[in-house]
Amino acid sequence: MAAEIEGIEGGGVTSPAGWRAGATYAGIKTYGEEPRFDIGILASEAACTVAGVFTQNAITGPSVTLTRERTSNGVAQALVTNSGISNTATGEQGMRDALRMTELAAQQAGVEAELVLVGSTGVIGWPLPMDLVESGIPSIELSAEGGTEFSRAIMTTDTVAKHRAVRVTVDGRSYTVGGTAKGSGMIHPDMATCFCFLTTDAPVDLDWLRGTLKAVADVSINMVDIDMDTSTSDTMLLFANGLAGGEAIDAAHPAAEALHEALEAVAIALARDLARDGEGAQTLIEVVVEGAATVDDARLVARTVSSSLLVKTMITGRDPNWGRLLMAIGRSGAEVVEQTITITIAGERTFQDGAPTDADLVQLATAMDSDEVQLRIDLGRGDGAATAWGCDLTTEYVHINADYTT
Amino acid sequence: MAAEIEGIEGGGVTSPAGWRAGATYAGIKTYGEEPRFDIGILASEAACTVAGVFTQNAITGPSVTLTRERTSNGVAQALVTNSGISNTATGEQGMRDALRMTELAAQQAGVEAELVLVGSTGVIGWPLPMDLVESGIPSIELSAEGGTEFSRAIMTTDTVAKHRAVRVTVDGRSYTVGGTAKGSGMIHPDMATCFCFLTTDAPVDLDWLRGTLKAVADVSINMVDIDMDTSTSDTMLLFANGLAGGEAIDAAHPAAEALHEALEAVAIALARDLARDGEGAQTLIEVVVEGAATVDDARLVARTVSSSLLVKTMITGRDPNWGRLLMAIGRSGAEVVEQTITITIAGERTFQDGAPTDADLVQLATAMDSDEVQLRIDLGRGDGAATAWGCDLTTEYVHINADYTT
Repeated sequence: MAAEIEGIEGGGVTSPAGWRAGATYAGIKTYGEEPRFDIGILASEAACTVAGVFTQNAITGPSVTLTRERTSNGVAQALVTNSGISNTATGEQGMRDALRMTELAAQQAGVEAELVLVGSTGVIGWPLPMDLVESGIPSIELSAEGGTEFSRAIMTTDTVAKHRAVRVTVDGRSYTVGGTAKGSGMIHPDMATCFCFLTTDAPVDLDWLRGTLKAVADVSINMVDIDMDTSTSDTMLLFANGLAGGEAIDAAHPAAEALHEALEAVAIALARDLARDGEGAQTLIEVVVEGAATVDDARLVARTVSSSLLVKTMITGRDPNWGRLLMAIGRSGAEVVEQTITITIAGERTFQDGAPTDADLVQLATAMDSDEVQLRIDLGRGDGAATAWGCDLTTEYVHINADYTT
Repeated sequence: MAAEIEGIEGGGVTSPAGWRAGATYAGIKTYGEEPRFDIGILASEAACTVAGVFTQNAITGPSVTLTRERTSNGVAQALVTNSGISNTATGEQGMRDALRMTELAAQQAGVEAELVLVGSTGVIGWPLPMDLVESGIPSIELSAEGGTEFSRAIMTTDTVAKHRAVRVTVDGRSYTVGGTAKGSGMIHPDMATCFCFLTTDAPVDLDWLRGTLKAVADVSINMVDIDMDTSTSDTMLLFANGLAGGEAIDAAHPAAEALHEALEAVAIALARDLARDGEGAQTLIEVVVEGAATVDDARLVARTVSSSLLVKTMITGRDPNWGRLLMAIGRSGAEVVEQTITITIAGERTFQDGAPTDADLVQLATAMDSDEVQLRIDLGRGDGAATAWGCDLTTEYVHINADYTT
């Protein structure tokens, strides 16, 4: 890859050309930092090529159903979101409300209602307070500086807004990719959702965009695990409005690889932001698996280790218990042999050739006292590799999720 | 089933005829209630028909390897166990130590060494202190009253010893079944193991015993989940010494059904004891799934719900968030349709026909303030049913598992 990817300080979904966003506080979400935002609109000047990846949960809310349907033809121009109520398990009323949200947002953004997608996150089973939605959306002002407000409007138990942007230049033409995400983990009183929305000004071929989004999701958002639960609303969307100009990018285009890498860079940065901000988390856990028989095996091991409660709590306690990693590796379902496994914690090799090394575990415990710990596992079986991200499990997670709602 | 199953107050592994047990404190385990026990021997007067079910983890310790090998011919007469160190990931030394333990126990119990099985639970990666084992085992005195001491000698982070026994009479002949188990969840500083050892004085056919143990495990120990992690040492053994007399029980024997039910009763009671005593647990969660398309689907849903962190923490908080159950049902992989699901929490119907009921959630929260909460799910798709057990997730779990070891 020749093209250089350049980060944009403070960038986000409105960093690419032709994107505007804004947010308001309608009163749906009753917690979070002041000033609060709970409805956001993101819109492009021009219609976009769009692709989506959705929750694998068999039960989904009307917002997911509608957005999945509207991305099926590959064209969209705007997105309206709310936080506080997920509009799931709300019967037929839920679909009417989701449709109405897109109508209101369409008027505000000046686009056709059919080109507006919708995302809702928050409590399951409560109907949306449509009076608040009706009065809130018309107050949203869209601007090229509104990306951060939009990022804040999708937050639930997230403690920081997550937004990233990069620029990549190929043959003298620059493409910008922006993105925002919101957290995994649950929200009082129900689980939240993982949202990841990417924007770009690159012109793209729809098939290429779909394949690329799937590939990017598989190495970013799909490798984050906070608590092993899958929301009914998880949604990842990628909008490309083409305003950077030039030929539509497909697999044969000279910028294809660079744009793919730019999208991946933004999505992975957001994935790490999500893991770092997992509910109650103090430490980001990065699990790097190498030497697996297949990439699928590497993914299995990386995800099993990063989501193991026993691994999470050993990170909470800064405790270099490599035995817990061995246990998680063994139960992952991947092809593994104890004798060829090498385990490295925070740079220190702790298990190799079927036996513990003579690593200084007391010193290692001190090295683990960091806001980021890397667990590196070489399975010694082949070339498969994968990386997953998670976070430690703290008493704060239990407090957040055990609070009364009644 | 005509035969009545009668519980034996305070019974355990030595309740059936011809069983003796004993324990000692060798100094391997440095925590737990005084007086401590950390090595136990269980032995039968006569050689037994034996069957085993072992961890699915790809990595196992020498004790599991040896015990699996020795149960392959279906004959054994004794069991030696230790707690505190799991003798896993200890290289060739680990197998030598496991063999030596069986030799020492054989001398003490007066049986052939090849007929002794072994189970070790505790820290991974530490070698067994064989000097302590060598001096400890010869001090163990076996007696028919030693069942409780044996149950205490397998405890790690368990807070109570778990032992059960029942008697069943068929055509004038009584058979006794005893059992003990130790907890899931981890142990400072590493994970522990799930052990479940059953004894009986019934005479049995080996094939019948193997099939029955598998069936019993699938509705008891295999339906308990504390933290989704699988130990490298999980072991369930069933010994039948035949001293109750009569013909060997196989599928055609008139007592087959009654003995199967007696074994199931003991194993399910122990499974519930394990869940209730999960690390940091305050509340036993029983998940009853009915109306599934298949039994496999019912098992999937029951296990997914009982192991979901979001469900566990809603029980911790006595919070009737049926939305979390809906989420877990949806991600289980079972065939489900939102509209046919009925969710009942602690006797109160909260979701039906695709919408919330008008249940009084405040009152329900009060009803959930109990040491046992039942979650009942009817999928409305068929006749498949299954029950799983778990426990709530408390800050105490995090404390137990995050403590420093270094």
